[in-house]
Amino acid sequence: MNYETPQFFHLMQYAARADGDVIDMVSGNPDWEPPQAIRDGLTEYADADAGEYQYPPSDGLGPLKAEIAERRQVDPARVIVTNGTGEANYLAMARALDDGRGDECVLIDPVYPYYPGKVSMLGGESRLVEANRDGTLDTAAICEAITDDTALVVLNTPNNPTGAVYDIDAIRAVVAAAADHDALVVVDEVYDHFDFSGSFESALTLEADNVMITSGVSKSMAITGFRVGYAIFPPALAEAAKTRHMLVNVTTSRPAQQAVYTAYRNTGPDYYAAARERLVDRIESFTSALDAAGAEYTTPDGAFYVLARFDGFPGTMDNVKTLIDEAGVAGMPGSTFGTARDEWIRFALVTPRTAEAAERLVEYFAE
Amino acid sequence: MNYETPQFFHLMQYAARADGDVIDMVSGNPDWEPPQAIRDGLTEYADADAGEYQYPPSDGLGPLKAEIAERRQVDPARVIVTNGTGEANYLAMARALDDGRGDECVLIDPVYPYYPGKVSMLGGESRLVEANRDGTLDTAAICEAITDDTALVVLNTPNNPTGAVYDIDAIRAVVAAAADHDALVVVDEVYDHFDFSGSFESALTLEADNVMITSGVSKSMAITGFRVGYAIFPPALAEAAKTRHMLVNVTTSRPAQQAVYTAYRNTGPDYYAAARERLVDRIESFTSALDAAGAEYTTPDGAFYVLARFDGFPGTMDNVKTLIDEAGVAGMPGSTFGTARDEWIRFALVTPRTAEAAERLVEYFAE
Repeated sequence: MNYETPQFFHLMQYAARADGDVIDMVSGNPDWEPPQAIRDGLTEYADADAGEYQYPPSDGLGPLKAEIAERRQVDPARVIVTNGTGEANYLAMARALDDGRGDECVLIDPVYPYYPGKVSMLGGESRLVEANRDGTLDTAAICEAITDDTALVVLNTPNNPTGAVYDIDAIRAVVAAAADHDALVVVDEVYDHFDFSGSFESALTLEADNVMITSGVSKSMAITGFRVGYAIFPPALAEAAKTRHMLVNVTTSRPAQQAVYTAYRNTGPDYYAAARERLVDRIESFTSALDAAGAEYTTPDGAFYVLARFDGFPGTMDNVKTLIDEAGVAGMPGSTFGTARDEWIRFALVTPRTAEAAERLVEYFAE
Repeated sequence: MNYETPQFFHLMQYAARADGDVIDMVSGNPDWEPPQAIRDGLTEYADADAGEYQYPPSDGLGPLKAEIAERRQVDPARVIVTNGTGEANYLAMARALDDGRGDECVLIDPVYPYYPGKVSMLGGESRLVEANRDGTLDTAAICEAITDDTALVVLNTPNNPTGAVYDIDAIRAVVAAAADHDALVVVDEVYDHFDFSGSFESALTLEADNVMITSGVSKSMAITGFRVGYAIFPPALAEAAKTRHMLVNVTTSRPAQQAVYTAYRNTGPDYYAAARERLVDRIESFTSALDAAGAEYTTPDGAFYVLARFDGFPGTMDNVKTLIDEAGVAGMPGSTFGTARDEWIRFALVTPRTAEAAERLVEYFAE
């Protein structure tokens, strides 16, 4: 895992430069329309008084912060509107590592590569604990890995890249083990609107004073470029996190905050349901093709990625490039996500050409 | 200087809660209109394809980065579009402190309080060196303060809060002294469009490989809430800074980047000249009133602040609150800006009521 030359961008460039037509299943950008209210919100904001073009409160535009607090049923003082879920995770991880709780961060392998990147940037040490084969939490292994050196455990549910939705009791066990060692837990729930299992439950329901929740609307509203996310801190940790947010970013971009506020107020459940239905269809067509290609895979309970393993074709960077050149399908090497899924390739189902990509894979592996 | 409870917000709240009418001269928000092209750019973007709502390149939207590089006459690979000049300074300061160059950062006193706040957050130590009485650089004192422990020198020109515009030869001397001790220099030029002296010259012209330039359009385009700034790194330092930018923020908000690009392309010099003329008028009316009030002050050569000292009325937080309550004018205590201007009060001239505020001060101090 090398963060100086992010594999993600390297592969995107490789795919873009390829001779033939390549279906991009690398990036995690939704390919569908944002809510109409995002566009309406921007248009309205474009006519706002000049005063509304100036600094909002550092921790977020008042009405947006109140809206998030109301939806999550927390005191607004616990909420920071961040420059995407990326900054929310950075603030939460910094909080854990700044408090003299230890240097070690327990991460689940396979791991979203930004997590160990942030840990390293913040001067911490990552300790990877393998997930179960189906992506669920191996609570015994995690609890064993948590020691007095542990500052933080990072969980992500629904999970990228496995698609697992963690059982709330498993999260509770991890949170309790962390509390025993004065460690914090960040639960990144950015895929919370993409739960196909009906079993997702936010870790906020645990009401634990060592849990920090991060989320955002990049995925749910299909606006990854807007950078609007949030963190919910336990009351005792919020002030210090706000100070860091102010010193790093001052505040989150106001037109984006305003548009998201408008969209929260004017987007019904149908919008999110349609996105889920679209993904369920894609998962079905893609996994059927993987069956036909003789691959092993995990059917995701949430998020929008499928991890697949092809016999005799491990998910190395070389093989992924071969797949780009010879099959016209670009995925992400499993080796990008820690060490537990070296054999696997991650495919993001956020392309309208998912079925076509599936056919290409069947054809390629049938040869 | 306490960053846990920023004095800035504390005072804004105090002024907002005051019984009488208070003229806000605390905040650094321009009170004039942004360029029309900012509004046009947002409106156009609201109708863009959904694909344009997704992640731009991490280091900035291609055309915007190219535009900045063209204007600054540098290789686009040296440019990072940041979440405001605040993030640009954070990235530059982190670069200096991450490289094993030492722990000490030399800052000029009076100092913009975010600088020592960032230094402390990044694990460094601030060393304040007093500016000359007129706000210009005391190069001998600075060069003496730079040692092998020095990682970084931070300069800000045109200066907040003194209004000084640094002589390029003075900057050159500091940069050379820093280079002798393997230290970097960040020059924050966010007020570069507000030079009334005609003498401002960017430190980019030094072509020094230990100089990082930060700037942005928050002030020049009157859009402090948009958070669009940039850093220009020496080629050897750019990649590591891009990695940090990616790990902290992923990227800068795209609607804001797009609107700023449109505004760069469609805003003529008249817009900036009008802002300068407005400020020159305000400086004249305000300093005339300070003469009438018997105050000492510095006439700013740049930026939009006036530091004033009233005999027998030092710029403490208590006195500043008294001025809010009894004169109806809110300024910033000099003690917020380090130790060199404890006696002074900073007034931001970004209110259309500058002349009225001046009259109130004359009346108050005539009593």
